[in-house]
Amino acid sequence: MSDRLVIIGGNAAGMSCAAQARRLREPGDLEIVVVEAGQFTSYSNCGIPYWVGGEVEDAEALIARTPAAFAEQDIQIRFGTRAQRIDVEAATVTVRSDDGSGGIHGQSATLDFDQLLVATGATPLRPPVEGLDADGVFGVQTIPDGEAIRKALEKDPKRAVVLGGGYIGLEMAEAFVNRGLSVTVVLADPLPMSSLDEDMGERVCAAMTAMGIDVRTGEPVRGIDVEGGLARAVVTDAGSYPADLVVLGLGVRPNSDLAADAGLRIGTTKGIEVDDTMRTLSHESVYAAGDCIQTRNRITGRPVAIALGTHANRQGRIAGTNIGGRPARFEGVLGTAVTKVGDCEIGRTGLSTREAEEAGFSIETTVVESTVKAGYYPKAGKLAVKLLTEKQTQRMLGGQIVGGPGSAKRIDVLATAIWAQLTAAEFAAVDISYAPPFSPTFDAVVLAARKAAGR
Amino acid sequence: MSDRLVIIGGNAAGMSCAAQARRLREPGDLEIVVVEAGQFTSYSNCGIPYWVGGEVEDAEALIARTPAAFAEQDIQIRFGTRAQRIDVEAATVTVRSDDGSGGIHGQSATLDFDQLLVATGATPLRPPVEGLDADGVFGVQTIPDGEAIRKALEKDPKRAVVLGGGYIGLEMAEAFVNRGLSVTVVLADPLPMSSLDEDMGERVCAAMTAMGIDVRTGEPVRGIDVEGGLARAVVTDAGSYPADLVVLGLGVRPNSDLAADAGLRIGTTKGIEVDDTMRTLSHESVYAAGDCIQTRNRITGRPVAIALGTHANRQGRIAGTNIGGRPARFEGVLGTAVTKVGDCEIGRTGLSTREAEEAGFSIETTVVESTVKAGYYPKAGKLAVKLLTEKQTQRMLGGQIVGGPGSAKRIDVLATAIWAQLTAAEFAAVDISYAPPFSPTFDAVVLAARKAAGR
Repeated sequence: MSDRLVIIGGNAAGMSCAAQARRLREPGDLEIVVVEAGQFTSYSNCGIPYWVGGEVEDAEALIARTPAAFAEQDIQIRFGTRAQRIDVEAATVTVRSDDGSGGIHGQSATLDFDQLLVATGATPLRPPVEGLDADGVFGVQTIPDGEAIRKALEKDPKRAVVLGGGYIGLEMAEAFVNRGLSVTVVLADPLPMSSLDEDMGERVCAAMTAMGIDVRTGEPVRGIDVEGGLARAVVTDAGSYPADLVVLGLGVRPNSDLAADAGLRIGTTKGIEVDDTMRTLSHESVYAAGDCIQTRNRITGRPVAIALGTHANRQGRIAGTNIGGRPARFEGVLGTAVTKVGDCEIGRTGLSTREAEEAGFSIETTVVESTVKAGYYPKAGKLAVKLLTEKQTQRMLGGQIVGGPGSAKRIDVLATAIWAQLTAAEFAAVDISYAPPFSPTFDAVVLAARKAAGR
Repeated sequence: MSDRLVIIGGNAAGMSCAAQARRLREPGDLEIVVVEAGQFTSYSNCGIPYWVGGEVEDAEALIARTPAAFAEQDIQIRFGTRAQRIDVEAATVTVRSDDGSGGIHGQSATLDFDQLLVATGATPLRPPVEGLDADGVFGVQTIPDGEAIRKALEKDPKRAVVLGGGYIGLEMAEAFVNRGLSVTVVLADPLPMSSLDEDMGERVCAAMTAMGIDVRTGEPVRGIDVEGGLARAVVTDAGSYPADLVVLGLGVRPNSDLAADAGLRIGTTKGIEVDDTMRTLSHESVYAAGDCIQTRNRITGRPVAIALGTHANRQGRIAGTNIGGRPARFEGVLGTAVTKVGDCEIGRTGLSTREAEEAGFSIETTVVESTVKAGYYPKAGKLAVKLLTEKQTQRMLGGQIVGGPGSAKRIDVLATAIWAQLTAAEFAAVDISYAPPFSPTFDAVVLAARKAAGR
């Protein structure tokens, strides 16, 4: 008899696991059932701001792989079906399908599993204030979220307030600017992009202000003014910001309650604890992956919960490889990420100064300002590169980039160097490319390493 | 009494050496004299095609550092002064200054040196055919070359023929297309960009053809038709290509004759032999750097002569550091380079298939086609990434990229991974950035490594 793999959650981690497990095990050997509470699988959450902003016209484009494509691989997906309870001893998941569309007769059913993947994702943080449930307040996580915002845009709103200054906050601010709205970003932190050092966050803040965004820092939201059931303004201690629509970009927390209720170990970050094979610590046949888990920082070894699509995809794939019978280990994360707001690009990898200091590293930081192309080449935007190195060894620990178009993807070079544990001097010697349309003779990342190595 | 460092050649390698030596040794300790045959120092050769193409309006912009800036550092530059003879035993250089502008009274003089740097660069290759000396045939190496072409453009030429399909050939073809000329590229090789594998060269060729360039491959030039002293056509075995101007982009050879005449060892590549400190092999106080030397490929250890500004700058700096009294070693080259022709970007690093096979590696190659941005994001151009790995170890040996705007700079990620001697599996695990405006969930370089690792 074949094994059954049940996957709870049909997005990045869940479907990467399904696809990989299927690559390694035939349908006759492994049945794969995905339980998905929503109506979509394998869509690009990260694309939603661009759909809202109008760069992407059709939600279909955000679907990386259709249910039909999965069906062809004998991967069953039960939409509109929510996992209610995991019994790890009995190896069952109790699911509830509101409309029966998941193919389950009746409202509730029990699925036996031989292997289980918990890929329940994360939920946007909601500050404990009044008015957040009003019409006109939107999350930015799912395709229905995006649909709701696009519908609201049809009513010709004039003013948007974005809560939060992280990736989603910046991307939604850009989207609304592109739609011609007047945009206010309200954040509790002293600067946008709290995963950057302050000096780099200041550059982002200046760029946002320069593109006409009203950035209100150090102002936690205290409430939403609601009139007739509709959000009309965001209130902080410093003022009230009129809004025709309000968007939540305050970060997310791991959806680990279902796992916790089942007795699975939950880490200090509120993510599900797993080992490098993506197995939960207490149950060998129960895996977890994606935004719902706790993973480890590759440099510090410390537990972190970072919601990034790349990590989720990789972790799901690792789980699927192990379920498929081949050993595979997740190697940890650097938290490498890029984003942009207007023409301001932002990249980061490894440790920030705060993270490095918390982990007990004695560090040096180096900032280099240069241009994206040769200084004399047209449209040679500026960029700043910040490099963090360990004081004693000069090992590279972290990198941050803020600059004009074409700057941020350089972060991958730093990520690779940090991953390979190069010192600043070793990286400064790497034979990096140059031509006037692409960089000055020495790229800013090289100059930063050279400067760091020269101390 | 202070030492005297004489530098022959005042461009990338020479002036990097001068600047670095000065950083480490005061004028009272080290006199620095640069002998430069031309009238410019520290200019960007690589920028000349963009000056011709009109992206850069003023030659001044190409000067990275003015003679006045060097003078402030007590670095003397003798323009219009050509080194005629090096006597390594006597430690002298005989120079000839045609107009006395180098500050030498009389036409000929002898300079004593304590340290010498030979940084004589390279000379464009000229096929042994008739007509090359006619008016209307241009090199693309110096500022006077660029001036001459710009002057020729004022006469409203209609047709340009570019000889050669390497970096300079492609960049000049782009420049003339931008100027509205009808462009033919004539090359002896079967494909443009011979430093790429054929399948990648074919992509470049297709892109050139698509932008209206007439690419004539496998046609060595047999002669230039000259009328009234003016080049009128380029002749090959296959035909005659009418030309209002002709440009030489056939590569370069190291200018090592002066060094050879002085008894310095010349390598199989015709470049001057040096060790990793940039010292010539036979004379401890005589250094050489830049396009005139033979360096070593970091992967194979084999001698190579590659004319690239990045290498020249790095080598000059290494020489200057050693002359400055601090030990420094050059770590070899991967031959990492980027260029573009129109919207087609090209990057390469490490070994090509031919180079790997010549060095005795048993290799596997992997090609991945993907997009520069998320597939659904606007202007998500296509790109192809080719990865070369060693068969037994899966160590990464080389990478090639051909694709749309934003694709080529990814070569630096591969260069860093190759430099750090990562295997395909190790690189595939690196935490690389993602956001829809920057790449698909997994960047093509990661997909290539994953595919290579999965064999």
